[in-house]
Amino acid sequence: MSIAFCAAANLSPQFFKSLKFSHPNGYRPIPSKSITNSLLSDNFPKVAARSTGPIPPSQLIEVVNTAAQTGAQVVMEAVNKPRNITYKGVTDLVTETDKMSEAAILEVVNKNFGDHLILGEEGGVIGEAASDYLWCIDPLDGTTNFAHGYPSFAVSVGVLYRGNPAAAAVVEFVGGPMCWNTRLFSATAGGGAFCNGQRIQVSATNQVERSLLVTGFGYDHDDAWTTNIDLFKEFTDVSRGVRRLGAAAVDMCHVALGIVEAYWEYRLKPWDMAAGVLMVEEAGGTVSRMDGGKFCVFDRSVLVSNGRLHSKLLERIGPATEKLKGKGIDFSLWYKPKDYRADV
Amino acid sequence: MSIAFCAAANLSPQFFKSLKFSHPNGYRPIPSKSITNSLLSDNFPKVAARSTGPIPPSQLIEVVNTAAQTGAQVVMEAVNKPRNITYKGVTDLVTETDKMSEAAILEVVNKNFGDHLILGEEGGVIGEAASDYLWCIDPLDGTTNFAHGYPSFAVSVGVLYRGNPAAAAVVEFVGGPMCWNTRLFSATAGGGAFCNGQRIQVSATNQVERSLLVTGFGYDHDDAWTTNIDLFKEFTDVSRGVRRLGAAAVDMCHVALGIVEAYWEYRLKPWDMAAGVLMVEEAGGTVSRMDGGKFCVFDRSVLVSNGRLHSKLLERIGPATEKLKGKGIDFSLWYKPKDYRADV
Repeated sequence: MSIAFCAAANLSPQFFKSLKFSHPNGYRPIPSKSITNSLLSDNFPKVAARSTGPIPPSQLIEVVNTAAQTGAQVVMEAVNKPRNITYKGVTDLVTETDKMSEAAILEVVNKNFGDHLILGEEGGVIGEAASDYLWCIDPLDGTTNFAHGYPSFAVSVGVLYRGNPAAAAVVEFVGGPMCWNTRLFSATAGGGAFCNGQRIQVSATNQVERSLLVTGFGYDHDDAWTTNIDLFKEFTDVSRGVRRLGAAAVDMCHVALGIVEAYWEYRLKPWDMAAGVLMVEEAGGTVSRMDGGKFCVFDRSVLVSNGRLHSKLLERIGPATEKLKGKGIDFSLWYKPKDYRADV
Repeated sequence: MSIAFCAAANLSPQFFKSLKFSHPNGYRPIPSKSITNSLLSDNFPKVAARSTGPIPPSQLIEVVNTAAQTGAQVVMEAVNKPRNITYKGVTDLVTETDKMSEAAILEVVNKNFGDHLILGEEGGVIGEAASDYLWCIDPLDGTTNFAHGYPSFAVSVGVLYRGNPAAAAVVEFVGGPMCWNTRLFSATAGGGAFCNGQRIQVSATNQVERSLLVTGFGYDHDDAWTTNIDLFKEFTDVSRGVRRLGAAAVDMCHVALGIVEAYWEYRLKPWDMAAGVLMVEEAGGTVSRMDGGKFCVFDRSVLVSNGRLHSKLLERIGPATEKLKGKGIDFSLWYKPKDYRADV
């Protein structure tokens, strides 16, 4: 993949670093000319941590995998439970499963790394703010799908080292009624991405019109939501299709697996993204914010792609996102635990 | 489900039949008042054939199941083939798989019922126009998903008796790379719908805001396409979400299975719909055109739902569809084999 990029650009990374993309609020504006964009295609900074820190990758990923799989056991038990068809019955099942899955994951983390900081969707921030490690846990990503028995949903566990993704595991629930199954995605910074133990890589597609894309729409129906409906329409028009599946971690794993070319969404939380972005990058893909700026897990938007398409997609997604900023939509960092040291 | 309908309506079918819904081009307009719609909720005519004709249901469904499973074997072999990543390579794989699957299905049909009429996506019309039976075959529904290895896609076989669905089988490919699997949906007119041998039924949800929906967008980006983007936006706003999966037969089977509440799409062909509509109806759901009119397999649009939501969905979908007719968009029957006798 990088070979193709370099061939297109034929300029050193130093050249790009020397370019000044300063902007009042710290975002890099997208140049309007596509030729400029294509020159920038190899210039999206890596989001992975430089290392897994003092804990060796093999040790860290073993615990991350175990944590995700332990949560997944809880979810699988709930999947196989007879459902109470009342609304309250299903809502209770979702809430209970969410909490029980997170508790099971926390137990694994605490048993192995009692001094790490944890950010869970359910429990918020727990542990030592002084730790270099932050576990971002989504005990049940895609709750609407889970409530309906619609595949896919997932358990997502991503570990940051000084603010950047170091290790990740996502257990995806696939198939649906009569044939539920799971697959395990995992990755470590610099160590590649795997699905059920096999190395995976992003697709090689470099044309938007030959790409299959996927996006998501959050619960808040604000200007960002409306902008993304417009993007859905635009890309449905020019690509092979835009899928709408409903689970961020799963969508990103699908990019890593090479079955879709790209995924984007506004208004995501660290636990939605920490594992997925590492999976994509370690599978050879590219990660940025939707305005094209350097991504960190505490950002509010993400675009992940197979890399080859990244700049082409940003030609449309970037300006739409810039407009939202012009309207005063908040894109500042969020959900960063106070006092946690993040090199971002 | 019908109990709930009757309780809501409390009026005899004869009452509804006495209402005049004549319209110059034969479509029943949607009454503008929602109260009227809710009274009509039990009045959508059945789409299934009254019987399977002279062939007993058990004999017919056995051949239908075998035909779909034989096609699915061809598709599964292609799924497991190493992919040539060039565009031409993938396109050839799709074309070849489509044709080989259809040929395998035709062999099963011809061996068992040499005098039946066949309408295949690939081969067009083959056989005896004088036959009361018409086999509508989609050897690979969801080719874009198949090309990308993205679940789901399917083999769909629906048999009409005098123009109305009598028996149906859909083999859905689920899971994706590292965990491909299939499940078999099947149904006979009046005999119920089954998934992997277990009886299935539509969901009991009766509120749009608690429903999960799914739609599709065809290849032609005309006014109907634009209208459906608007419907996608509207329902994403008011429901739990609108999924976009990319395989009509699969989406309809998901309604039958009760994991989504409804599905609609413009511009479908008989081989996309013949099996799916029977599956939904036999699982207790409702089928109509998107303008609310009586559906037949040669129509160009379909709305299938769990029944309880049908009129509520039509309150938005119906008028949007009527507008398209006002613009001159063609909604007349299509792809009906000449001389085939259809009681529709």
